[in-house]
Amino acid sequence: MVLSVISFVSVTLFAQSNKSFLSAKDSDPVKMGWMQGFPPPKDKIVNAEDGSFFNFPALRWSVANMRQLMPTVEVSRGLKAPSPLPYQLDPNIDTLQFLPWGQKNRMTWEASLWENYTDGIIILHKGQVVYERYFGALNEDKVHAVMSLTKSFTGTLAAILVAEGVLDENKLVSFYVPELKNSAFGDATVRQVMDMTTALQYSEEYANPQSEIWAFSAAGNPLPKPKDYKGPVGYYAYLETVKRDGEHGRSFGYKTVNADALGWIISKATGKSVPTLLSEKIWSKIGMEQSAYYQVDALGTAFAGGGFNAGLRDLARFGELILNKGKWNGRQIIPAAAIADIEKGGSKEAFAKSGHPLLKGWSYRDMWWITENKHGAFTARGVYGQTIYIDPVAEMVIVRLASQPVADNSNNDPWSLPAYSALANYLMSKK
Amino acid sequence: MVLSVISFVSVTLFAQSNKSFLSAKDSDPVKMGWMQGFPPPKDKIVNAEDGSFFNFPALRWSVANMRQLMPTVEVSRGLKAPSPLPYQLDPNIDTLQFLPWGQKNRMTWEASLWENYTDGIIILHKGQVVYERYFGALNEDKVHAVMSLTKSFTGTLAAILVAEGVLDENKLVSFYVPELKNSAFGDATVRQVMDMTTALQYSEEYANPQSEIWAFSAAGNPLPKPKDYKGPVGYYAYLETVKRDGEHGRSFGYKTVNADALGWIISKATGKSVPTLLSEKIWSKIGMEQSAYYQVDALGTAFAGGGFNAGLRDLARFGELILNKGKWNGRQIIPAAAIADIEKGGSKEAFAKSGHPLLKGWSYRDMWWITENKHGAFTARGVYGQTIYIDPVAEMVIVRLASQPVADNSNNDPWSLPAYSALANYLMSKK
Repeated sequence: MVLSVISFVSVTLFAQSNKSFLSAKDSDPVKMGWMQGFPPPKDKIVNAEDGSFFNFPALRWSVANMRQLMPTVEVSRGLKAPSPLPYQLDPNIDTLQFLPWGQKNRMTWEASLWENYTDGIIILHKGQVVYERYFGALNEDKVHAVMSLTKSFTGTLAAILVAEGVLDENKLVSFYVPELKNSAFGDATVRQVMDMTTALQYSEEYANPQSEIWAFSAAGNPLPKPKDYKGPVGYYAYLETVKRDGEHGRSFGYKTVNADALGWIISKATGKSVPTLLSEKIWSKIGMEQSAYYQVDALGTAFAGGGFNAGLRDLARFGELILNKGKWNGRQIIPAAAIADIEKGGSKEAFAKSGHPLLKGWSYRDMWWITENKHGAFTARGVYGQTIYIDPVAEMVIVRLASQPVADNSNNDPWSLPAYSALANYLMSKK
Repeated sequence: MVLSVISFVSVTLFAQSNKSFLSAKDSDPVKMGWMQGFPPPKDKIVNAEDGSFFNFPALRWSVANMRQLMPTVEVSRGLKAPSPLPYQLDPNIDTLQFLPWGQKNRMTWEASLWENYTDGIIILHKGQVVYERYFGALNEDKVHAVMSLTKSFTGTLAAILVAEGVLDENKLVSFYVPELKNSAFGDATVRQVMDMTTALQYSEEYANPQSEIWAFSAAGNPLPKPKDYKGPVGYYAYLETVKRDGEHGRSFGYKTVNADALGWIISKATGKSVPTLLSEKIWSKIGMEQSAYYQVDALGTAFAGGGFNAGLRDLARFGELILNKGKWNGRQIIPAAAIADIEKGGSKEAFAKSGHPLLKGWSYRDMWWITENKHGAFTARGVYGQTIYIDPVAEMVIVRLASQPVADNSNNDPWSLPAYSALANYLMSKK
């Protein structure tokens, strides 16, 4: 298995049970002693060379230490003082009960955190921190790999640029990236890429060694290529090779390469890299506590589909910025129109064709998952349990970072999504 | 050439002229376009694989972007607000004149910055910033490789631990690191390692492919080892192989491995990694603006001999902390005894045997270079022109980060050290 692979796993894959793995408590990476000692014992060394850093339970250490395993590029918070989050902790949340999907017995909020191998979780209600906990290798002053949450950052940046008039969503991709003219992306619109309704011959099915995911991953791997390697070098070069399969605009297809193509598009449109854009538009603007970072390929290109790493509280600040339609402390930081575009959702019809049995009635817009529930909740999702969940009606933002044994979020959705709904109802019931 | 090599170059090597290279202005890395574009043109790509990232002029980009080329580990600034430096800029410094060593004509301060391929320079006088400039790839919100300045951080940490009674400088190295018992370090004292008076069969002579520097570098290189590689993996494993050559304590010998052995010693003595120690003792304590980082080997060991990267102003804050004998804003952050130990200097006799023709009468203590001049100035030094220069009498701290074409500081000392003395006199003459 090669570097930076697993972050692309589609949520439709690996519908496996956690039950055959060590429990969250038993797999605590600090307790297990990964990379502890001078030097660490041989069986506790995690490195990127053979890809085993992404295997559970070593993964539980890796998610909080990605920069130690590979090259990265900073997303600067700037040099100003952080903007403190107000606290109003609610001790009753841990005992809040909910019914997990498909289960007969109710479960407490706290128990769900262990069920989901949570590394960090924070809840904002009306802009105040009502709950915050850290587990495993994460701390308040560390960052965590957010996997495919990264896509929602790429999509938000694109939505901002559209709202600013810098990016035309109706233009063909080849208008911005001539290099993609002969690829599947060439005759797709920017909007189709933003909503992943492109028709691509591209599979993220891991079980199949012929899946395109492996070639994409090999191209993006920043380690030196094997001598007999003949494939493309870097994410961009790979994107040029993607072939069309069907007609664009018909069906949602969750494929990581769309996010990387979008990263390329917004970089060409602005002359700035994705990390620079994210720093300039957001990360340096809302009092982040920590700089964040992206994994990069051998050409320095940030992995816009899955390579972002950030602090728990800072992700909550970002969620709050989105909840507040782009305002932070009363100042409009990003255009309200960009957030409105996310919230209006995508085509439910296109989404329904994509086969996400647990996410019935949802849609996808600007690289966010739209629940289309009564609260208009929408969410950024990444494998192994990464989530930003925004409920506008309950004025609630949840960020959860995790390191589940199994990539596919269908392994935690039944213990997460109903918990979030129960929490929203509880918070709304408070005076 | 392999990764993270050049940072070990001894200051006695490469007494070459800059004259055959592009000028500082012509080699400006932004103007040259290194790593610019999506993707960058082939001839402007800098990567670590073949080591060419350390070749001038690409080096001028690399020094400000090391994390993009290799794995790193953070030195956290913590989460508090930065402590602002007061400003009292002095516009007359640029025109200050001095006579470079061995030259007939005087030169202005500003001209010396170009002569020395300066990337960033800051001067504090009585705690106020009187001068600050950035060039090339460096900015106020970026960090820069400090090369062997790293050693002075390792030495300062050791001096702190000695002052705190955590580390006994008279103990043998093998007391703290049993793994080093059969190496040259085994029967050296901690103090001998701190002052580099160990007798080691270890050459940093680059021209000779048999030099031990190459094996050390190969061991520390975090990239996957070639299939036929039989050597040690990681800095620690290399240190175990170093053989003794002569008697410890007789002569100063500037050898990077001492700093890495010291990093190991202080980690064993405290149970904490060097980056963690630096964060806990200093980086999170004096209002740093940016987190810093170390390059690491494949086992996650920070390169305590040359792998540190930090921001210009933060290095100035560190210099000011040392100048103020461990106090910051009136609070004692690190023991005054540790600074006093640095300032008292090392054995001039031991130093004289080491052959640094430009540094006559100097000594070396706690991995700092002691000028032994009338002002009691002392300095941290790294190849390609990195400097922290502290003049206690003039109450002056200078930090210069640079990317000279040639590693050896004898290429910039003649245009630097007399400029610093002239500046000290000028500042002292001000009311």
